[in-house]
Amino acid sequence: MRITLRLIGIGPGGPRQLTLQAIDAMADVDAFLALDKGAVKSGLLDARREILEHHAPQGYSVIEIPDPPRDRHPADYDAEVRRWHAARADLIARILTGQVGDGGVAAFLVWGDPALYDSTLRIADDLAARDDLELSVEVIPGVTSASALTAAHRIVAHRIGEPIHITTGRRLADTPAGADGNQIVMLDADLAFRHTADADDHIWWGAYLGTSDEILIEGRVGDVTDTIVAARAEARERIGWIMDIYLLRKTRS
Amino acid sequence: MRITLRLIGIGPGGPRQLTLQAIDAMADVDAFLALDKGAVKSGLLDARREILEHHAPQGYSVIEIPDPPRDRHPADYDAEVRRWHAARADLIARILTGQVGDGGVAAFLVWGDPALYDSTLRIADDLAARDDLELSVEVIPGVTSASALTAAHRIVAHRIGEPIHITTGRRLADTPAGADGNQIVMLDADLAFRHTADADDHIWWGAYLGTSDEILIEGRVGDVTDTIVAARAEARERIGWIMDIYLLRKTRS
Ligand SMILES: C[S@@+](CC[C@H](N)C(=O)[O-])C[C@H]1O[C@@H](n2cnc3c(N)ncnc32)[C@H](O)[C@@H]1O
Ligand SMILES: C[S@@+](CC[C@H](N)C(=O)[O-])C[C@H]1O[C@@H](n2cnc3c(N)ncnc32)[C@H](O)[C@@H]1O
Repeated sequence: MRITLRLIGIGPGGPRQLTLQAIDAMADVDAFLALDKGAVKSGLLDARREILEHHAPQGYSVIEIPDPPRDRHPADYDAEVRRWHAARADLIARILTGQVGDGGVAAFLVWGDPALYDSTLRIADDLAARDDLELSVEVIPGVTSASALTAAHRIVAHRIGEPIHITTGRRLADTPAGADGNQIVMLDADLAFRHTADADDHIWWGAYLGTSDEILIEGRVGDVTDTIVAARAEARERIGWIMDIYLLRKTRS
Repeated sequence: MRITLRLIGIGPGGPRQLTLQAIDAMADVDAFLALDKGAVKSGLLDARREILEHHAPQGYSVIEIPDPPRDRHPADYDAEVRRWHAARADLIARILTGQVGDGGVAAFLVWGDPALYDSTLRIADDLAARDDLELSVEVIPGVTSASALTAAHRIVAHRIGEPIHITTGRRLADTPAGADGNQIVMLDADLAFRHTADADDHIWWGAYLGTSDEILIEGRVGDVTDTIVAARAEARERIGWIMDIYLLRKTRS
């Protein structure tokens, strides 16, 4: 069975962050697949629904894929992630063969850019490796939340010619010296910079970027940490979920 | 004199990589400013012209800003870059006051995303610091060439949970061990990976991404280096200029 699976990056915020290429890619999709991330992230589902309503006016079908159960604190993190991806791939393969069918086009709308801390492409690889599907995978790049952050703060990500290190809260403490001049930190529920940054480093923090709830805070780490901690806790409580990211710049002594 | 200066990320390739937000941002621009990068990069100027013709149909004015002379091999690289930026800022300030005028909106179309190895935002900062202008700077994020690369190769930029290091050919050899698991290398006319990568590392290389000249090569460094060197030289000769980027992944032993 031949099926096209399209991963469409939709940018990190509002529906105006879609590219024309992404809109083109939505035109002939038979079914949009949606991974259920749980009710707390309903803001994300709403954004996707808004995009579909504007840009797939031909009438679209959305197939919601329930999330297989996942161990959030496994002994072997990588192995558990792989097992969980395989379980999702089984489920999606059944949906593709049963509900999309031969010659059909299915698509995922992927938050931000599909290449950055998103598992949809790994699922696609698992699907492409199966014998029961002849899958043609297409990827449409999107604006990343890193670009949304720097644009909102109107900054370049690095000092002239310097490298940028993109990492997660979980790995932040592992960044080697010499790679920590400009770090963009994602997926950090614990604001891990509190344990790694110097008071004189500079931070540019942003939450709900590109949406009407956007919050921006920037300054010397020693000056703004408490403000960020408080703003994050307040917004998370009020809105029910949060997505935030920051750029940490080392001040050279 | 109050002037809005808008930096609009246009993505790294074709005109379909524009976001809707970028198109919105072009609607009320009085004058588009274009930094002259020399005739060799005329492919870039063409792409910008095509974008304007499609998306600024109200009739647009383009002001070309000549490049002040620049020392390409200075003793102090950073100081020379700063001097050169200041010279451009003087020139642009005269254009904004003389040709855009009070209450006007000027814009730069910035290749890719304005936060990544692009000097336009630094120029805007220099301009914003001047007493003769009350400048309001706005930045619209764009798809980066890094995202175009990973999308074209249909890969995630990192193995599960790993960080990404974005750097330049000039700095590639300085990446500390432990930060070199997944490196995206830009601005590299010398294919510096030939001196830093192991034969067993993996490379995904791409040139003219998102355009009809797109070239993609990937494989084990030891297997594909010669192919990349030859393809790069051939294309550069044939087309007259080249823009290429690669992802280098360390194979762990
Ligand atoms: C699972 S990752 C997906 C990243 C996405 N693929 C991208 O290109 O930005 C989710 C993380 O992205 C960041 N993020 C995504 N959208 C964001 C937004 N609108 N505002 C702030 N952070 C955002 C947060 O760090 C969040 O923890
Ligand atoms: C001055 S930097 C500008 C980067 C841009 N701001 C971005 O977000 O991608 C130019 C470098 O970007 C990369 N680049 C930009 N567009 C590209 C394309 N279409 N194909 C391949 N590489 C590209 C190349 O590494 C090139 O040397």
